[in-house]
Amino acid sequence: MPRPIITLTTDFGEGSAYAAAVKGSVLSICSEVQLVDLSHSIPPQDVLHAAFFLSEAVPWFPAGTIHVVVVDPGVGTSRRLLYVEWPSRSGEDQPVAEMQRLLVPDNGVCTLLWRRQPALRILQISNQRCYRSVVSNTFHGRDILAPVAGHLANGLDPSQLGEPVADPVLLPFPQPQREGQRIRCEVVFVDHFGNLLTNLHRDDCPNCSVAGVEVLGIRPRWVRTYGEASPGETVALWSSGGWLEIAVVQGHAAHRLNLGRGVPVLVTLTPG
Amino acid sequence: MPRPIITLTTDFGEGSAYAAAVKGSVLSICSEVQLVDLSHSIPPQDVLHAAFFLSEAVPWFPAGTIHVVVVDPGVGTSRRLLYVEWPSRSGEDQPVAEMQRLLVPDNGVCTLLWRRQPALRILQISNQRCYRSVVSNTFHGRDILAPVAGHLANGLDPSQLGEPVADPVLLPFPQPQREGQRIRCEVVFVDHFGNLLTNLHRDDCPNCSVAGVEVLGIRPRWVRTYGEASPGETVALWSSGGWLEIAVVQGHAAHRLNLGRGVPVLVTLTPG
Amino acid sequence: MPRPIITLTTDFGEGSAYAAAVKGSVLSICSEVQLVDLSHSIPPQDVLHAAFFLSEAVPWFPAGTIHVVVVDPGVGTSRRLLYVEWPSRSGEDQPVAEMQRLLVPDNGVCTLLWRRQPALRILQISNQRCYRSVVSNTFHGRDILAPVAGHLANGLDPSQLGEPVADPVLLPFPQPQREGQRIRCEVVFVDHFGNLLTNLHRDDCPNCSVAGVEVLGIRPRWVRTYGEASPGETVALWSSGGWLEIAVVQGHAAHRLNLGRGVPVLVTLTPG
Repeated sequence: MPRPIITLTTDFGEGSAYAAAVKGSVLSICSEVQLVDLSHSIPPQDVLHAAFFLSEAVPWFPAGTIHVVVVDPGVGTSRRLLYVEWPSRSGEDQPVAEMQRLLVPDNGVCTLLWRRQPALRILQISNQRCYRSVVSNTFHGRDILAPVAGHLANGLDPSQLGEPVADPVLLPFPQPQREGQRIRCEVVFVDHFGNLLTNLHRDDCPNCSVAGVEVLGIRPRWVRTYGEASPGETVALWSSGGWLEIAVVQGHAAHRLNLGRGVPVLVTLTPG
Repeated sequence: MPRPIITLTTDFGEGSAYAAAVKGSVLSICSEVQLVDLSHSIPPQDVLHAAFFLSEAVPWFPAGTIHVVVVDPGVGTSRRLLYVEWPSRSGEDQPVAEMQRLLVPDNGVCTLLWRRQPALRILQISNQRCYRSVVSNTFHGRDILAPVAGHLANGLDPSQLGEPVADPVLLPFPQPQREGQRIRCEVVFVDHFGNLLTNLHRDDCPNCSVAGVEVLGIRPRWVRTYGEASPGETVALWSSGGWLEIAVVQGHAAHRLNLGRGVPVLVTLTPG
Repeated sequence: MPRPIITLTTDFGEGSAYAAAVKGSVLSICSEVQLVDLSHSIPPQDVLHAAFFLSEAVPWFPAGTIHVVVVDPGVGTSRRLLYVEWPSRSGEDQPVAEMQRLLVPDNGVCTLLWRRQPALRILQISNQRCYRSVVSNTFHGRDILAPVAGHLANGLDPSQLGEPVADPVLLPFPQPQREGQRIRCEVVFVDHFGNLLTNLHRDDCPNCSVAGVEVLGIRPRWVRTYGEASPGETVALWSSGGWLEIAVVQGHAAHRLNLGRGVPVLVTLTPG
């Protein structure tokens, strides 16, 4: 029987003892899993960053993967914990639809996934028999989400976890504004290379091509890939995840252009 | 048969070639293990930090887990290498007792674990037939501890490793000083969120509640969890590991209050 | 049947969504692998650093391991992707020869491995049936190398990947210059501890001992291991990987001596 895959995404910092404790807590319930670190480098309590991260990472995993997400500024308050079933969209940039499972605080961290494809099922995690016997006030990742992931890996029927949720929290993710052939979008994510990713997705522009991009007076050249331009040149392109991206070839666009989250970007389209 | 779990804790830095070599060295002896990265971010040669880290992480793992620890400023000197069996304590904050195994330099890195529960068995690792055939002078993690972990995972009887050790090195971990209902403790660890963890454990205060906390003139409000206070407020609470913690809600206490390791903290208790 | 081992080495940054996507892409093809993170901390697009990293890490893995390397400034250009079979050298510092497999961009990232031992076989990866059905222009790690690794783990015959390559790209790695008993080498790598590693390997000096080392007027004492010197002392020694290393005991040599990559080092040998 294939071993279940459990991934971890937290804001604990790489090499944190808290991430280590979550791993131990999962393995104490089900030792025969494949544990996969997605990230422990989400900026502390930055739910929007985590939402973007998940939309880039989760769709690539095989069906049945369990994703544990601990970016949880509301721990210990009345915020809910959720079990989510979400189908990877089948499409040009995506693998065949695969049902992913997520265990998350109800704080909007799934907003960008749901924008692409609605959840199939959302349940509140409230069955305390699936928790650790003693639950701390400040660490539900270790004491609730990790044991629940272990029980699901052991075959627990998710319907045992709790009642359906119809009103999950959504983040106010900025929407691109379209006026005719012009779209006003904005930078929402800066990656490790300094590339600027916007909230405009290729799927928002069906049957269109990009004729021009402008960001604070800079007009990056539109390319298909970095290699079409020279080192140091500022370019715009569709990122590997399908988002409009502004990059400096072999350089750090955020530092070089002094741009970051929230900067407006103007895109002109042409049909075809 | 379940695959043995081997964890790694080092000061090599995340993504270090040395950590990679340790992993290869383990897998070359026993490829059917579950390798788990605990941390490669222990500050270089900071044995006290590693001791605190282990006390937060190790107790959560299932019985039989093998923890390889390479924080080893004394490599190449006559310092011993140890095999340690340690029982996780069963208690309010801890899972059921589970026998953990640790492979460590004899430099006090287990001090905080042993403060909570004595070791069951300590052996010197001296049987060179369990080493790599050639041992470097500067990298015993790769050449001794990793192969020994692999052999243990393959079923080696630990008594083959070497003789019992009665006098392991202990760190001078500061002890809280109690005078009646007042306890003087100190900050011993700053986590990734900037939370300040002290050397006072909840188990040091049986049948007592905390009436007040003072640190350099600041009097944090006592709470059960961060969510009881407002963002930016300074609070004190029992951490998820049971230590007295001082935090700034959704902020970085160490930076905000300009406090760090060694700062004295005064706690007042009341019965009940 | 033992699970195949697939390692990942990238310049994506620890905790990057791109590394997460590569992991998902591998697991979507073959979920029964042991995924091992080697590093996601290669400096962005620093192929020479990656080459040195691989030469320190790859030789320690068991036969058959598949190493996926995504340090790929030329993504989207006509640069080739390679499948490489490489035998770990059996020798004083190395385990028994074990055939490693690497999936790499053809940019010289294997130069230091090949300097130690020639590749057994190099094939161009060109069979698109082994790719993801849709390949992005900017992320061949996720869309080509990861699926190919998964297929190899599933038992794909490598000869299906493409034609042999006779002229792989080599980096201009500086060679030590020998004049009689003097060798001029240079610093090529600074590790996490600040130790300075040069391009002079112990195997370059058969039947010789080091009589003296000089770097910009500093004459480090020659030792076998750090523990022979006092904290703060500057020493030179053979590193655990066999390279001439300059270190400050329990300190950060690169910061303390203000030295880095490219600094010349003069070594004097004596027979024996």
